[in-house]
Amino acid sequence: MQRYKCTVCYDGTLFSGYQVQPGKRTVQSEIEAALKRLHKGNDVKITASGRTDAGVHAKGQVIHFDSSLFIPEDSWVKALQANLPDDIVIRRVERAESDFHARFDAVGKEYRYFVRLAQEKDPFTRHYQFHFTYPLNVERMRETASYLIGTHDFTSFCSAKSEVVDRVRTISEIELIEEEELLLFRFSGNGFLYNMVRILTGTLLEVGRGLRNPEEIPQILNGKDRQLAGKTAPAHGLYLWKVFY
Amino acid sequence: MQRYKCTVCYDGTLFSGYQVQPGKRTVQSEIEAALKRLHKGNDVKITASGRTDAGVHAKGQVIHFDSSLFIPEDSWVKALQANLPDDIVIRRVERAESDFHARFDAVGKEYRYFVRLAQEKDPFTRHYQFHFTYPLNVERMRETASYLIGTHDFTSFCSAKSEVVDRVRTISEIELIEEEELLLFRFSGNGFLYNMVRILTGTLLEVGRGLRNPEEIPQILNGKDRQLAGKTAPAHGLYLWKVFY
Repeated sequence: MQRYKCTVCYDGTLFSGYQVQPGKRTVQSEIEAALKRLHKGNDVKITASGRTDAGVHAKGQVIHFDSSLFIPEDSWVKALQANLPDDIVIRRVERAESDFHARFDAVGKEYRYFVRLAQEKDPFTRHYQFHFTYPLNVERMRETASYLIGTHDFTSFCSAKSEVVDRVRTISEIELIEEEELLLFRFSGNGFLYNMVRILTGTLLEVGRGLRNPEEIPQILNGKDRQLAGKTAPAHGLYLWKVFY
Repeated sequence: MQRYKCTVCYDGTLFSGYQVQPGKRTVQSEIEAALKRLHKGNDVKITASGRTDAGVHAKGQVIHFDSSLFIPEDSWVKALQANLPDDIVIRRVERAESDFHARFDAVGKEYRYFVRLAQEKDPFTRHYQFHFTYPLNVERMRETASYLIGTHDFTSFCSAKSEVVDRVRTISEIELIEEEELLLFRFSGNGFLYNMVRILTGTLLEVGRGLRNPEEIPQILNGKDRQLAGKTAPAHGLYLWKVFY
């Protein structure tokens, strides 16, 4: 058996998220089905760095799996790709140590969130950027971001549905980049809770619109209550961009 | 009755082209259905500047229609949009002279074709750019374009299925713009035959790859035979960009 580390890109639009769910089209089921075909009908389980929700995209999701097939690294990409639909793209397959673990070995992640600032609708980006029509004060959003950076209990920025107990995470960077009609958010940290990036984005957008003040953030964090933070921004603007090991 | 000129943008991916076809989802049927709802069940026919094929996009398609509804121009956009799926976007509705005709009054059109030059596949642009993995000599392509500009009989660059008799058209401009991994083609002219932009693009790409020479173009034009020109480039890279009146 050889363990492989595999970097995957996918358009989340037509998936019910990453994780296998009975009767649903998911990223995991598609990749496992492709591996099963390559392994003559034998099941091969994959493990990802983490799940992504329905509609969320990935530029650099990482998974691992074990295989007894003798295939050179380069040919793995082609072999897998040939068995996958075109909304999943295999970017890289590398041999890994037998104890490499896509989730437990991840030391950090980068997420990006794309907001399209324009009045007119655009059919071409409707699944790939969140269309936002209100004017934004980006400087105030950057000020808000500075309160979020660091190590905090992010309970207020975590879906109430989450069952994770330890909600302390470290955000190392939140960068807001303005590029013509696009506002790009880059979030880097050692880990993110369920819906955390979308709630952070939603809250930052509320500050940008003038509905909240940057100074509220410490209270929101201290309150440890999901109700205190802003709305969850829609899934389709979010990309799992990179996983660090 | 008031005649309206309406500018429409659509993502062609999920349409069987522009024109009504029984049992198929088309742009024309969706817009006519929206107008019918606004007109209490009465049919309203629309006329476009021309058809687009399945998978072909439009940034600035123009249509006209007549209506007896009293709606201010601004409200027309909202009223129509509220009745349309999100892969069609109404950009503008303007009152027009009663004899304005979206097809007959068009004096020129601009089409754009997007080619993505990269080795790696990209799931996000799969419906919006033609992914081309061969290296291209863009200077040779520009040289080829210079033979195509002007007034010619474009029979060799027209689908053999076309029933149009007069195949003389004037191309005023073919511009090739390189932008990172993108190669953008801009075609402007007084009119384009069935599949003409896609065959022009396919032929230019064959020159770029070194499969043909720029000097072949005059012979191809003179031969008036579709077989002489290059392959038809795929629909999903093509955009009807603007119609001139």
